[in-house]
Amino acid sequence: MRILITNDDGIASPGLRAAVRACRSVGDVTVVAPATQQSGVGRSISLLEPVRVEEIEIEGIDALAISGTPADAVLIGAFSIMDEPPDLVVSGINLGENVSADITTSGTVGAALEAYGNGIPAIAISQEVRDARARVDNNAKDVDFTLAIRVLKALLETIRGVSWEGVLNVNVPDPDRWNGEIKVVPLASTMYRPRIEERYDPRGRRYYWIDGEIIQDPPEGTDLYELQRGSIVITPLTTDVTGDLDAAENVIKELRRALRG
Amino acid sequence: MRILITNDDGIASPGLRAAVRACRSVGDVTVVAPATQQSGVGRSISLLEPVRVEEIEIEGIDALAISGTPADAVLIGAFSIMDEPPDLVVSGINLGENVSADITTSGTVGAALEAYGNGIPAIAISQEVRDARARVDNNAKDVDFTLAIRVLKALLETIRGVSWEGVLNVNVPDPDRWNGEIKVVPLASTMYRPRIEERYDPRGRRYYWIDGEIIQDPPEGTDLYELQRGSIVITPLTTDVTGDLDAAENVIKELRRALRG
Repeated sequence: MRILITNDDGIASPGLRAAVRACRSVGDVTVVAPATQQSGVGRSISLLEPVRVEEIEIEGIDALAISGTPADAVLIGAFSIMDEPPDLVVSGINLGENVSADITTSGTVGAALEAYGNGIPAIAISQEVRDARARVDNNAKDVDFTLAIRVLKALLETIRGVSWEGVLNVNVPDPDRWNGEIKVVPLASTMYRPRIEERYDPRGRRYYWIDGEIIQDPPEGTDLYELQRGSIVITPLTTDVTGDLDAAENVIKELRRALRG
Repeated sequence: MRILITNDDGIASPGLRAAVRACRSVGDVTVVAPATQQSGVGRSISLLEPVRVEEIEIEGIDALAISGTPADAVLIGAFSIMDEPPDLVVSGINLGENVSADITTSGTVGAALEAYGNGIPAIAISQEVRDARARVDNNAKDVDFTLAIRVLKALLETIRGVSWEGVLNVNVPDPDRWNGEIKVVPLASTMYRPRIEERYDPRGRRYYWIDGEIIQDPPEGTDLYELQRGSIVITPLTTDVTGDLDAAENVIKELRRALRG
């Protein structure tokens, strides 16, 4: 199995090294990942900027650090660096959970969706991090990837044996919180309530920080709920964001009349 | 009706001014938009960088140019600039169509999804542009927004009269290509086949351009197909990217066995 690994925390992330350790025992690994932290960029693609690359060694294998986004890494890796597209893209292991419909802002998930949108099966995998600061800190020493590595390895061995062409979003709780369950569940509708902080710099110029509070009572049976319970949660994803066609048709009937009139 | 307008082509875009002209006749307008071109950033949110703002006048009304993304503009506009969240977010009018499941990389659509994800109904509206260069050229003189303005105005008047809480993706063909039809259709699975160009700078350093070719034979009944036929195409969207749970459950059964063993 030929596996392209990327992430959104950047090439220096211990989570990327953990993904390499899990994948190399199961397949041939190519690593193309953003040079810098890209949290929150979703499925962003660099259309207006060229993407630079730099060669680097990770866990003893050659890797490419790119100036762009996780989705860029998938496109450049799969359609230029590799002789032919990989059998699988693995994105992660992300520092911090990626759950709820808010994951469309996640670069980890964005890379997986970009792969899937181009016909390549993909796994996005994220490690729950209870300390908010550790989520964007590649030097975080106390993140324990042992369970995530075990899950990823077993998942790779599983899908190697079946015909599977999807994209999975996997979240792994802190190993000491795991309740022993693996749940296949839908996304919660949202994880964060937005909180915007207005500030002024030393020269009196206004700026904003975008932040959010995690919702503490997610609906039962959703990924956020199950992760809070300590389950490993797995959600199959789709790139098709088509909504309720019948409801829209009702609104558009009026519009047709208005434009004819 | 209180309307927050944003876009992804940036504050200088003639499409943003066209949206203001359409919306101001129907409601109270607030404009918060990226200072610079943000095509391709999807639902990207600035989590690691502060967002700066600058006041500017557009079509005679006060507007804010921000240093961030379209989704940032929605969050800052709806949850900080405005006293309370708007009744509607309008994102566009984008220079260039946004069709197929590839729209999750569109900043225009990303802003609308960010609004919807936070409980605010939204319309993303894009004007077909046949000349690829004009898509990222805010000085493009020959883009005719007359039909798009007419559609947007009529749509605002329509939804003002009904209870509607969704998000619509609207694409308007060149006025001289309009076949008179308005179609409510699902997204095509993809619009582009990726094409990556490897180049070398004058100092011999490698870099890449990400590009793509538009697929010329989209499946019948999809948004791309209908837009190519000259229809106005409207697709309701969702932020819920949960895929096929049953198919995933089959794969995960194996995984459960492996992790128990």
